[in-house]
Amino acid sequence: MANPILVELTRGDLVESVHRGSIAVVDAAGKTRLAIGDVEAPVYSRSSLKPMQAMVLVESGAADAYGLSDENISLACASHSGEPMHTDRVTAWLARIGCTESDLACGAHPSRYEPVAEAMIREGRKPTRIFNNCSGKHSGFLTVARHWDVATEGYERADHPVQRAVAAVLGDLSGTTELPYGIDGCAAPNFATSLTAFALAAARMADPSALEPNRAAAARRILASMIAYPELMSGTGRACATLIRASNGRASVKTGAEGFFGGWIPQMGLGIAIKIDDGAGRASETVIAAVLDKLGLLGDGARALLRAPILNTRGTVVGERRPAAALSALNL
Amino acid sequence: MANPILVELTRGDLVESVHRGSIAVVDAAGKTRLAIGDVEAPVYSRSSLKPMQAMVLVESGAADAYGLSDENISLACASHSGEPMHTDRVTAWLARIGCTESDLACGAHPSRYEPVAEAMIREGRKPTRIFNNCSGKHSGFLTVARHWDVATEGYERADHPVQRAVAAVLGDLSGTTELPYGIDGCAAPNFATSLTAFALAAARMADPSALEPNRAAAARRILASMIAYPELMSGTGRACATLIRASNGRASVKTGAEGFFGGWIPQMGLGIAIKIDDGAGRASETVIAAVLDKLGLLGDGARALLRAPILNTRGTVVGERRPAAALSALNL
Repeated sequence: MANPILVELTRGDLVESVHRGSIAVVDAAGKTRLAIGDVEAPVYSRSSLKPMQAMVLVESGAADAYGLSDENISLACASHSGEPMHTDRVTAWLARIGCTESDLACGAHPSRYEPVAEAMIREGRKPTRIFNNCSGKHSGFLTVARHWDVATEGYERADHPVQRAVAAVLGDLSGTTELPYGIDGCAAPNFATSLTAFALAAARMADPSALEPNRAAAARRILASMIAYPELMSGTGRACATLIRASNGRASVKTGAEGFFGGWIPQMGLGIAIKIDDGAGRASETVIAAVLDKLGLLGDGARALLRAPILNTRGTVVGERRPAAALSALNL
Repeated sequence: MANPILVELTRGDLVESVHRGSIAVVDAAGKTRLAIGDVEAPVYSRSSLKPMQAMVLVESGAADAYGLSDENISLACASHSGEPMHTDRVTAWLARIGCTESDLACGAHPSRYEPVAEAMIREGRKPTRIFNNCSGKHSGFLTVARHWDVATEGYERADHPVQRAVAAVLGDLSGTTELPYGIDGCAAPNFATSLTAFALAAARMADPSALEPNRAAAARRILASMIAYPELMSGTGRACATLIRASNGRASVKTGAEGFFGGWIPQMGLGIAIKIDDGAGRASETVIAAVLDKLGLLGDGARALLRAPILNTRGTVVGERRPAAALSALNL
């Protein structure tokens, strides 16, 4: 059966395009608070997995051994925009662990922050691996390899101790034994879980009281770091930073490619997993904003995130992107 | 009922994202050759409407009165990339009708051809209205207004004689009396029809033998111009040019925003209309390629367009975009 339509885009009097998807909201005890659409099929969480991937960095003691700050931890969870605040900190981090940019396994892509991307074109500077939105995550992997004194080369392979540790943490937190993986845009393995399992893992990070103390402390530090430094885990004007700020720090959220969005709500002990069937980020942003709003976590002003005007090239409003009926009607 | 899944994207062993949509293939007599999904709901065809919008330019005699070439006619149907081959010709065209760029009602956006966009950033040149992908269409509207000696100002409004003439042609060709409209990205009205009605209009252009001679000649000239100058109606490396060339000029196709694609097959007298529910261009390109392939119009080499590898930032193949079962199975 098809997942329900969650988001619609209008133009004139017609709905022009629609986005279907599924949503799971789960608490730390494993109770499903909300299940819309298919929440059991395995789905890649893509960059929404980064806070789970960062668990190994913190709970292994690697972060402390190398004196990483909460800013570094936020960067480890980042799909960053390649602004100087990101690239400068990643450069310093790599130096701190005795690595260089050439140790990063991710490929290069241009900065996602237009003023930086345009300045680099003007100045004839080519983007390098450090500009990859995942360079903080990769620096985290390298830090763990250093701490464990294992080879840094090949740290991105699924059979490397760092990636096996990531899979083990994710398996534990999500209660999942089978973790099929694909290769992410940055060359690291990305493990698939059901939406329910992802949301459970996020909930256990949001309310880690039942986890062993070292793991619980890691979860608390990661979420606090993302909430304290939302621009470091995303970038200027990006949806994650906007939503974390709009929640007054009550929610951490992390976007992923192909229409995934994850949410961690410490005060409520809830985890959120969203997947848009067709992979559209414009829709996953609307859905996470709607879920946060239903949970009472968005201030009045921030509710504007829910309904976005569609402008033409003259700046005229010609339609809007908005929650569809199934999303507007949901109760939480 | 949900439209069927037409396109899927894989990563590793899983399908990561899917695109649903509908397809209509109709002949000039109005016989439906293929109907997949909902082909009766009104849909904006967006830039796929341009060949119909260009009908007024040619059948009014405006194109001949101002000595427009087939290159100009192709440009009138263009969502062009803002390369010099496009902007130089639009500039000359506007001069020929005694207009300037400031008469264009469309807004500015950067060139869609990366080398040009980057060169303009390097040189500090701002994109102007002429770079709008629709500037050829708008030059066509202005040419008609000049030819009819009516006000050029306001030519983009739905009640202007030029736009009323566009609606009348579209209504005639598609057999549609109700034409709701929205405002397109370029500020011109975009009229909605069912997919069946759009495909019928396209089929009547592809086989115009039953139309009155002046209209039939206009349809023949427009399709021949698009096929003769596919890069002028799109741009270097763009899907429309690639597909027209891959068909050895047996098909004309025109993309539209939000997942629309139109097709005109003169030899077969067929019209094609495709709409991806979620608006994804990556999916509409796969579907039009698949439909052309089913019609026997793609050469062996060009069938590679059907299945596109998905690369990560290191250039490694991590998945593919491909026709889903419902699309692979269709018979034409």
